[in-house]
Amino acid sequence: MIILGLDPSLSCTGWGVIRAEGSRIAHLANGQVPTDAKAPIAERLAALQAALAEVIVAHRPDRAAAEEIFVNKNPQSTLKLAQARGAVLAACGVAGLTVNEHAARLVKKAVVGTGGADKTQVQAMLKVLLPGAQIAGADAADALAVAIADAHLVQRF
Amino acid sequence: MIILGLDPSLSCTGWGVIRAEGSRIAHLANGQVPTDAKAPIAERLAALQAALAEVIVAHRPDRAAAEEIFVNKNPQSTLKLAQARGAVLAACGVAGLTVNEHAARLVKKAVVGTGGADKTQVQAMLKVLLPGAQIAGADAADALAVAIADAHLVQRF
Repeated sequence: MIILGLDPSLSCTGWGVIRAEGSRIAHLANGQVPTDAKAPIAERLAALQAALAEVIVAHRPDRAAAEEIFVNKNPQSTLKLAQARGAVLAACGVAGLTVNEHAARLVKKAVVGTGGADKTQVQAMLKVLLPGAQIAGADAADALAVAIADAHLVQRF
Repeated sequence: MIILGLDPSLSCTGWGVIRAEGSRIAHLANGQVPTDAKAPIAERLAALQAALAEVIVAHRPDRAAAEEIFVNKNPQSTLKLAQARGAVLAACGVAGLTVNEHAARLVKKAVVGTGGADKTQVQAMLKVLLPGAQIAGADAADALAVAIADAHLVQRF
């Protein structure tokens, strides 16, 4: 089972692809898609989609996963994030991929063992779980974490 | 100048196409794109995009317009709306269309003459401004209103 983890954002969307067989997981690829902050939003969303479509064609995931979204303290940031997420999920939908959504707390618990883990702990655990993987950045790390969580969580359903 | 007005929403996105020449406007087409509430969100967003892409190919607008988005009292509704908007704007971006964003108040002011107009007043004025147009529903009416507002507002820039 090949899982595409996604960390959508308008400024820089992270993605990570893993292979999961039973409880064994392996890193396949990861990356980040930055968009031009000076470009109009429709153009940025289209660029995000085009990049994600390429990732999907290249790695042929069986399913995708992303963290659940919520309205945070900054409504404007949330709106940008949600629009980016809409474009990213649409790219998955076009490719026929289901996108499983997991609460941030469950992702941390699945990866580190505790829902209260911070980013540093998650990134340290990624090095253990995906030895040798070169991780493109913090957004790609978050995407790999949600892919790993999906492998664990959905297996149990 | 052909303008595509958009009223994005996950459950039913409205669209309307008008031709604007100076201060004269004419109705070209309008419609609504409902999505299957039981389908996964990625599939619904992909369906929205596919429908909008068809509208753009059929009517070849020069630009698009939508109301500005804001976080309202129901955060969950706002998140769904913003994700639908992201998919719709990405479809415009893919087609190379700029999407002008206008505050709801300015749209009402441009169409009815007062920013405090209600939906009934907007719809009544659409019948006057676009005589003979068969309007598909409330979402299509909102989309036509933002297209008309865009014709007025952007002309003045």
